[in-house]
Amino acid sequence: MSKPFLAILMGSDSDLPVMTAAVDVLRSLDVEFEIKVSSAHRTPVQTHDYVKDADARGAVAFICAAGMAAHLAGAVAANTTKPVIGVPINSSLDGLDALLSTVQMPGGIPVATVAIGKAGAKNAAYLGAQIMAVGDADLAERLKQERQANTDSIVAKDAALQDKLKNGEL
Amino acid sequence: MSKPFLAILMGSDSDLPVMTAAVDVLRSLDVEFEIKVSSAHRTPVQTHDYVKDADARGAVAFICAAGMAAHLAGAVAANTTKPVIGVPINSSLDGLDALLSTVQMPGGIPVATVAIGKAGAKNAAYLGAQIMAVGDADLAERLKQERQANTDSIVAKDAALQDKLKNGEL
Amino acid sequence: MSKPFLAILMGSDSDLPVMTAAVDVLRSLDVEFEIKVSSAHRTPVQTHDYVKDADARGAVAFICAAGMAAHLAGAVAANTTKPVIGVPINSSLDGLDALLSTVQMPGGIPVATVAIGKAGAKNAAYLGAQIMAVGDADLAERLKQERQANTDSIVAKDAALQDKLKNGEL
Amino acid sequence: MSKPFLAILMGSDSDLPVMTAAVDVLRSLDVEFEIKVSSAHRTPVQTHDYVKDADARGAVAFICAAGMAAHLAGAVAANTTKPVIGVPINSSLDGLDALLSTVQMPGGIPVATVAIGKAGAKNAAYLGAQIMAVGDADLAERLKQERQANTDSIVAKDAALQDKLKNGEL
Amino acid sequence: MSKPFLAILMGSDSDLPVMTAAVDVLRSLDVEFEIKVSSAHRTPVQTHDYVKDADARGAVAFICAAGMAAHLAGAVAANTTKPVIGVPINSSLDGLDALLSTVQMPGGIPVATVAIGKAGAKNAAYLGAQIMAVGDADLAERLKQERQANTDSIVAKDAALQDKLKNGEL
Amino acid sequence: MSKPFLAILMGSDSDLPVMTAAVDVLRSLDVEFEIKVSSAHRTPVQTHDYVKDADARGAVAFICAAGMAAHLAGAVAANTTKPVIGVPINSSLDGLDALLSTVQMPGGIPVATVAIGKAGAKNAAYLGAQIMAVGDADLAERLKQERQANTDSIVAKDAALQDKLKNGEL
Amino acid sequence: MSKPFLAILMGSDSDLPVMTAAVDVLRSLDVEFEIKVSSAHRTPVQTHDYVKDADARGAVAFICAAGMAAHLAGAVAANTTKPVIGVPINSSLDGLDALLSTVQMPGGIPVATVAIGKAGAKNAAYLGAQIMAVGDADLAERLKQERQANTDSIVAKDAALQDKLKNGEL
Amino acid sequence: MSKPFLAILMGSDSDLPVMTAAVDVLRSLDVEFEIKVSSAHRTPVQTHDYVKDADARGAVAFICAAGMAAHLAGAVAANTTKPVIGVPINSSLDGLDALLSTVQMPGGIPVATVAIGKAGAKNAAYLGAQIMAVGDADLAERLKQERQANTDSIVAKDAALQDKLKNGEL
Repeated sequence: MSKPFLAILMGSDSDLPVMTAAVDVLRSLDVEFEIKVSSAHRTPVQTHDYVKDADARGAVAFICAAGMAAHLAGAVAANTTKPVIGVPINSSLDGLDALLSTVQMPGGIPVATVAIGKAGAKNAAYLGAQIMAVGDADLAERLKQERQANTDSIVAKDAALQDKLKNGEL
Repeated sequence: MSKPFLAILMGSDSDLPVMTAAVDVLRSLDVEFEIKVSSAHRTPVQTHDYVKDADARGAVAFICAAGMAAHLAGAVAANTTKPVIGVPINSSLDGLDALLSTVQMPGGIPVATVAIGKAGAKNAAYLGAQIMAVGDADLAERLKQERQANTDSIVAKDAALQDKLKNGEL
Repeated sequence: MSKPFLAILMGSDSDLPVMTAAVDVLRSLDVEFEIKVSSAHRTPVQTHDYVKDADARGAVAFICAAGMAAHLAGAVAANTTKPVIGVPINSSLDGLDALLSTVQMPGGIPVATVAIGKAGAKNAAYLGAQIMAVGDADLAERLKQERQANTDSIVAKDAALQDKLKNGEL
Repeated sequence: MSKPFLAILMGSDSDLPVMTAAVDVLRSLDVEFEIKVSSAHRTPVQTHDYVKDADARGAVAFICAAGMAAHLAGAVAANTTKPVIGVPINSSLDGLDALLSTVQMPGGIPVATVAIGKAGAKNAAYLGAQIMAVGDADLAERLKQERQANTDSIVAKDAALQDKLKNGEL
Repeated sequence: MSKPFLAILMGSDSDLPVMTAAVDVLRSLDVEFEIKVSSAHRTPVQTHDYVKDADARGAVAFICAAGMAAHLAGAVAANTTKPVIGVPINSSLDGLDALLSTVQMPGGIPVATVAIGKAGAKNAAYLGAQIMAVGDADLAERLKQERQANTDSIVAKDAALQDKLKNGEL
Repeated sequence: MSKPFLAILMGSDSDLPVMTAAVDVLRSLDVEFEIKVSSAHRTPVQTHDYVKDADARGAVAFICAAGMAAHLAGAVAANTTKPVIGVPINSSLDGLDALLSTVQMPGGIPVATVAIGKAGAKNAAYLGAQIMAVGDADLAERLKQERQANTDSIVAKDAALQDKLKNGEL
Repeated sequence: MSKPFLAILMGSDSDLPVMTAAVDVLRSLDVEFEIKVSSAHRTPVQTHDYVKDADARGAVAFICAAGMAAHLAGAVAANTTKPVIGVPINSSLDGLDALLSTVQMPGGIPVATVAIGKAGAKNAAYLGAQIMAVGDADLAERLKQERQANTDSIVAKDAALQDKLKNGEL
Repeated sequence: MSKPFLAILMGSDSDLPVMTAAVDVLRSLDVEFEIKVSSAHRTPVQTHDYVKDADARGAVAFICAAGMAAHLAGAVAANTTKPVIGVPINSSLDGLDALLSTVQMPGGIPVATVAIGKAGAKNAAYLGAQIMAVGDADLAERLKQERQANTDSIVAKDAALQDKLKNGEL
């Protein structure tokens, strides 16, 4: 079995510009990952085979991004008992269709759904890392540091705003 | 290969009270059908195997009923190039989640979606029969007769209303 | 009676840029079709007469595209017992009005509804071809080949992504 | 030509319990009306013929009630240039489907849409009477009196509430 | 009392680009109208006074356009028993807020609501003219001619499409 | 000028069962209030006159409850520069129509909107009291005590749950 | 304790372009305010500490702007019994997610919610000033003058429109 | 540090009837858990303190259930870098408000959202167990067995349906 990793699937290569946000987060956290274009509807056999293989090779969790009637996360969840994270992509109806298709899973087959679009792509990566950190204390520590850095950046933005106010620039 | 038939799948046996409306229509039209509980998420292998087998045995079209993140019709459509009809079942959000999960399929994998709930169950049966009638002139004729009977029943209801009005019962 | 064909109706010529996606699919599958601008509201007589005529001349199914309070598919379905496919066009409210106006048909008069917009236009063509293939084994075979090509294109896109990853281009 | 009247159509006799609210208002205002069950989808010929006939016989306006993909008002509006009032009936999705199917008419074919359900049924009657009052000064006067009575009833309800408050019954 | 006319109110002068569509229709039908910027919320007194005055001077109906929590039509309807037509303007939430604020009037105070935006602006004008035509046979005739011209223009667009198809330009 | 008070208006006496939740909160906080049935649409003059009068007599803020196309809060806000609180009542579409009609006010005429239904009725009372407390330090203190009591009640509910768990009753 | 002031919090500095509309209103009304970037999720400690501190220093009310799952206003309301105003920012789903996350507060913890986006930002400032005016008669007077100016500007816009009409420029 | 456990929080004890579905799943999987009533808005200090304490004592993940403007999961996520699962409870608007308030988290603070109501409560437990299984191979095995049992139960339900069909009981 290989090193623990996260397996990212996208239903279409048009989802890549959104999902690079997840890739960036995982790289910044030094998390191993694979990323693949594979469709629940157009390549069901390849999707099934990849999930079974990745699961066996040590995938800790799956991240699945899809738009419209977004079935990819559900189709993956049907073939593994590892955690599956779903990212609804906005390609119609502001992404509401993708959100409902991803989150409203029947009892027994959970999909951990995050926000629509880029914010969701980032959070899928953070959530995947949090799950991986259950068995990786170093990663857990890096997540805490990243959170602190996030806090610091907001504090810095506020400081910049206060400066602007003092200088009458607002 | 067996006689042409329609293959009905339901994601849960709790969908049966809705789908009996489809069964009743098919029986009234003398259309062969099979009906099966099989879930996209909980029995993906059985669903896949049944679709491949039914397709080979002469299924003309598939009717798939599911609620919430209703993936069943899409999962069936991914495994056949026969027409697949989707019936959104209302088990949450007034059925809007099931409707969007069924109808918003990506290009290349159509699902012929009908109305939410019992009206949709009936119409799935009529639509399945209309599709089967492409190769069955007798069924095409029965469909015309049934349509006329439907028209006649509305006309009769109006006649009853006019009687009530004349008799001052409204 | 002429050769079997699909009859496409659009409620407005402004729907044409969306519906060319259907035309392209039908041409690639070598399916006969007619395409017509005819409105349920503005040319009700012409719509009625065309449907009756096309039905008699051998139309296998109808594809109807309309936006807003999209009644065209329902108006056609009221005048034929052939399968009627509805394509909701997005011209307001993200197409939700057109979707609900098309799909929520009362029991007895089905409309086979596909996704909003261009994906739906494509899928209307595939679904129409699937229905026509009930009586045309060659077309059924072409549909299987097209599906395989669709699968192959996703596999190729994934291969390209894997190359990018290996080359550090992502 | 007969006396001026309002022509009420319902897509189904199941709409009658809602539409009796319209009947009651019209009777209280002493407005002539006809009421008919006639469906855009199931009796399109009868609907068309009745509209043409009623229009010729002196119908001042049409009131059309329907649920789901509510096309009745639009189908009537396509066949007359008299005012057409649409009442969305709630039989699914809280009536949102019927509302959008009724109100979102394309330019050129207006439908005067009122609220979903019983409040809409009442208001369709008031609106129909207001339209008829364009040519009937007595009716215009009765409408003003009815409005005043409506105002008085709210004032009376408030008076009752103030009494309750004084008596410590709230 | 002046000649019969339609009174158009807009809640904001930013609604004018949409409402010019109504102006164009009324001018093409040779219908008298007044048009005014007056807000239910920002100029309630002026709105009230104008409605009372216009009503007394012979306004046949009112057309009210507003966005967001669109109360203008309702505020006008509260002060007249003449027909009031509401045009929901899209300035947020795709116009759904304006639609619901306009159409969902309580029993007794109808607002004849038309589609969101430009299509609604046109239809408000047609509907206003249809109402005025109750007492103006010439206008009724012009409305029939305009309807026929609308039909003819769709027929012409279809003819152009058929030419394109014959010439292989599609 | 009388003692400071909150002025509650309801569009219909059918809103009273919901609004008693506000009355109960105000009584528990010992806040003076008036409560009145007055409709934006059916008693516009009475509503206008009451608002002007209450404003002059020392009303600190207004609380307005209405359903459907809920214009009451907006109509009140148009006639005062005191704070106006809007409570959307659910009488159709789960209260979404009332919410949007209340909250989506144009710039310049704010309505402080709270949740749909009973929770909103309570919160309108708390918010009204918070506003009154700007000029009433005793009331400010009572609000803090009530908040603490609210906290304590949740803590007590949790303690009860922990007891149940220990006793194996869950 | 400092002079009375309004405390504005934004969940992200990307909300600033919207919230400058509030700043402009407050400056035009000569209302003291503080404005701060502070996130319910990313700087919960800083948010908590600022609210407690501002409350103690004399903040009369809080204005909180946030998008998506907009928790900022609720998080502030949980830590003060001063009035809290919530501005839903549109950064996804047309702002519907932010609106519902802000307004649907449980009983006991009110958030005075205003419209989505810029109109809401303005109205938050007006509402905040109205609340502050409970204890500041001069500000109450300035609010009345501003309202009159707002009315005058609409009247002027209408006058400009009437001029255009007379000059045949419309 | 105690044994690994899941920490369940509910915003109100009225959520308990829904969340017992989670309790039942966790017990059937032999997973340690704590369950607590604690509100983001009414007991923010207690919620904060519990999260910090549970995190330190070895909580592997948090499950948070809340309705309306459901902030509990977000408030917990703001105070830990452990995985947080959100269960939207339906107490208004069919649960759509709770869903959007839970899932639409900004980048950096993920909440793993599951379906609205009872299905979501079950899936929160399965997902929590899947996350815990990252460090517990025995639990991973139990999850596989439970999944197989779930599959078997659907297969059994289908077998029962087939029996009914053979016996003419459908």
